[in-house]
Amino acid sequence: MSNDALVTRLREHLGKAAVLTDSDVTDAYSRDMMPLAPVGKPLAVVLPSDVEGVQAVVKACAEFEVPIVPRGAGSGLSGAANAIDGCVVLVLTKLDQIVEIDAGNRLAVVQPGVVNLDFRNAVEKHGLFYPPDPSSYDWCTLGGNLSTNAGGLCCVKYGVTTDSVLGLEVVLADGSILKTGRRTVKGVAGYDLARLFVGSEGTLGVITQATVALKPLPQAPSTFVAGFSSTEAAGEAVARVVREGLVPSLLEIMDATSIKAAEAYLKTDLGAGSDCKALLLAQSDSGGEVARRELAALEQICVDCGADLAYATDDLEEGKMLLQARRVVLSALELYGVWLTDDVCVPRTRIAELIAGCERISEEVGLRIAVVGHAGDGNMHPTIVYSPDSEDEFARAQKAFDAILEVGLSLGGTVTGEHGVGKIKREWLAREIGEVGLRVHRQIKQALDPQNLFNPGSMFSL
Amino acid sequence: MSNDALVTRLREHLGKAAVLTDSDVTDAYSRDMMPLAPVGKPLAVVLPSDVEGVQAVVKACAEFEVPIVPRGAGSGLSGAANAIDGCVVLVLTKLDQIVEIDAGNRLAVVQPGVVNLDFRNAVEKHGLFYPPDPSSYDWCTLGGNLSTNAGGLCCVKYGVTTDSVLGLEVVLADGSILKTGRRTVKGVAGYDLARLFVGSEGTLGVITQATVALKPLPQAPSTFVAGFSSTEAAGEAVARVVREGLVPSLLEIMDATSIKAAEAYLKTDLGAGSDCKALLLAQSDSGGEVARRELAALEQICVDCGADLAYATDDLEEGKMLLQARRVVLSALELYGVWLTDDVCVPRTRIAELIAGCERISEEVGLRIAVVGHAGDGNMHPTIVYSPDSEDEFARAQKAFDAILEVGLSLGGTVTGEHGVGKIKREWLAREIGEVGLRVHRQIKQALDPQNLFNPGSMFSL
Repeated sequence: MSNDALVTRLREHLGKAAVLTDSDVTDAYSRDMMPLAPVGKPLAVVLPSDVEGVQAVVKACAEFEVPIVPRGAGSGLSGAANAIDGCVVLVLTKLDQIVEIDAGNRLAVVQPGVVNLDFRNAVEKHGLFYPPDPSSYDWCTLGGNLSTNAGGLCCVKYGVTTDSVLGLEVVLADGSILKTGRRTVKGVAGYDLARLFVGSEGTLGVITQATVALKPLPQAPSTFVAGFSSTEAAGEAVARVVREGLVPSLLEIMDATSIKAAEAYLKTDLGAGSDCKALLLAQSDSGGEVARRELAALEQICVDCGADLAYATDDLEEGKMLLQARRVVLSALELYGVWLTDDVCVPRTRIAELIAGCERISEEVGLRIAVVGHAGDGNMHPTIVYSPDSEDEFARAQKAFDAILEVGLSLGGTVTGEHGVGKIKREWLAREIGEVGLRVHRQIKQALDPQNLFNPGSMFSL
Repeated sequence: MSNDALVTRLREHLGKAAVLTDSDVTDAYSRDMMPLAPVGKPLAVVLPSDVEGVQAVVKACAEFEVPIVPRGAGSGLSGAANAIDGCVVLVLTKLDQIVEIDAGNRLAVVQPGVVNLDFRNAVEKHGLFYPPDPSSYDWCTLGGNLSTNAGGLCCVKYGVTTDSVLGLEVVLADGSILKTGRRTVKGVAGYDLARLFVGSEGTLGVITQATVALKPLPQAPSTFVAGFSSTEAAGEAVARVVREGLVPSLLEIMDATSIKAAEAYLKTDLGAGSDCKALLLAQSDSGGEVARRELAALEQICVDCGADLAYATDDLEEGKMLLQARRVVLSALELYGVWLTDDVCVPRTRIAELIAGCERISEEVGLRIAVVGHAGDGNMHPTIVYSPDSEDEFARAQKAFDAILEVGLSLGGTVTGEHGVGKIKREWLAREIGEVGLRVHRQIKQALDPQNLFNPGSMFSL
């Protein structure tokens, strides 16, 4: 059976406009935001607008034995959504309905193409809150969030995407529809298949609908910032926050390189003094007296750990300004070149050691490495800056990328806290989970996708 | 190969004292607390004391093609731990070490035989809190909690067992050891295998170690009780608690039959008046002013919904006394016969309808049915009372048990909120998850346990 016949079949099912084959157009759907990942040439890019369309695509591809790479907006940072040669890229952005918001039971039913921010705004009108907030929340889609088990700044208090998932609808490799999970907040009827599909990076099926739990809308946040003249002191402060049982709604760290970049970009100094080596930024969304008490406790810990700067505010605008320093880091690094952001998660007592390791690596490879991260859960994003015109710098950036993972593992951490494995960390996954772990992954993949139809070679190879 | 040879082999590996074959002794390890479930005659009961012992048992049973039924203390309510004829019952209670408590990272590493309460007490000494608190917490083991994904009173605020799990060590069907998950609070390296094994009721492998996340120790609880002259009013109060975004640390409901039983048992009236049809019991563990504010908001909702009684206290002893009414219900029901407790979870807006359904069923079958439950997450335990000497009453109790599940499903609920499927709800699982869901279960089971060695026929049949 020829590829032309598959394209004809797809057009019959989806309509001509929903099946793209012109490489000028398909290139735009062929990669995510990770420069290290390999990119292939797809046979076609398809944009079904309902679950029946997704089923038709899966059945046709199964028949023609053509692999499927599912994707959302393409904000990913692991190449999981990158095309492989000859595949069909299955774009889910047209399944973009918020099917239901059930405020009485604090849940919603959504399609995968809904943009995270649009969904947040929609539930906020009901006084509700959807916690997962990856940095790309203003353009990433919920389907991608589910497939990568995305995190964000909220995780220290509210967990990652899987913690909000109650149930899923998934199109399986034979085109049948699996409905798994539930609408109740508790339930143990059978295996937790929903959480198996969450974070499976499109290798087991195509998520076409999700039922998610919502939280009550928190209070407006109060914000706290502390500056330290050593990363060790900042790391010790984080460890003490954990040990003393504080649970801020946000707890971020910036190292010296990040601070300098943000200051250059914002054309201001962050008030931390010229020998500031680390900033901690925190918020409490508990409101009123409780928030004040939580931030006062944070301040006490930071001062005890030798902070030179410690400042709290419950003014919303001022809080936003303080957080801006954290939010602009990636843009700021573009002053120096292009960036490559890594993703490791270490035990929260080991953050300072990870930053020290990144400093060492930076010296070794002769490239700027800025460390920002979700300190409250130990999830760090060391970000390597290199020149887009230098192959040598790119090679050194790759070397640094791997060296950071090495340090992360040596500290008892994991090679990915929230970005996923995709097409760039397959060898690292194998190393982290070992032979037996890899075997179980393969057994599950083969059981659910015997033709190896879904995103083959991503995450691990058979 | 004969069964004698298997017993000999097991004795070689574990020592004679750890392999029991005398039926007077093995009977005690052959069933859990669910009277409806079938019970078989095991070939042997084995009690290894380390992971190597577990591996030896699994390998020997695989070689002799003898099924394994893993179990902990036997407090389960689904028959999942019940022996089947000719099986080896693998008792995990001797793997009872708390391997590590890492207060700095708020986590612990435990073996499956540790009793829930012992673990709670151990982490409390570090100012930490392990939330899952099934009713049997003073004797059930963590391995059973993991295998059933146990809940408890804490779930309304803190979730179920799976929400505390970071990583697992599991002995697989070929005797190899899978280490999955992590020590970090975030991590997306590969499939979420840990949460696949949690709640799999011993059908996929034997959990020999778990890494669990701990919470800061909450404040001493303040307690609130409200009495209503109709279950509809109590149900509406629960729905409004959810809708208005309150998150108490406990929110329980008792229907009229439970109240009467508790009053008879405690030889006191609960102060709710003779026409009280439902009690709500709530706690806040937020402490001080916040707890007072949370309970005041609860009180306002209850009064708005027509509560005849509404009383709050931050006195610990008085709070315990108020909660005692809820805790004694099962013991109290033994005044009238033996009990059979069901487990359904419905959307939190449908609780009153479930209770009304149970009243209808009670009249139909002519048996007392008391409804108690975790109102805050819709997880109800209608408990049927029957005479142990009457086969007819037992048959009617079984009929009521199924009729309750029927009502639960019709309200958009699940057939098990926290007890599991085991050997009593297989047909109901099939009905709830459907053909495709069942097929995926079988595919995963066959992939990981091709000999169908682990707890065959429990949860579903191949």
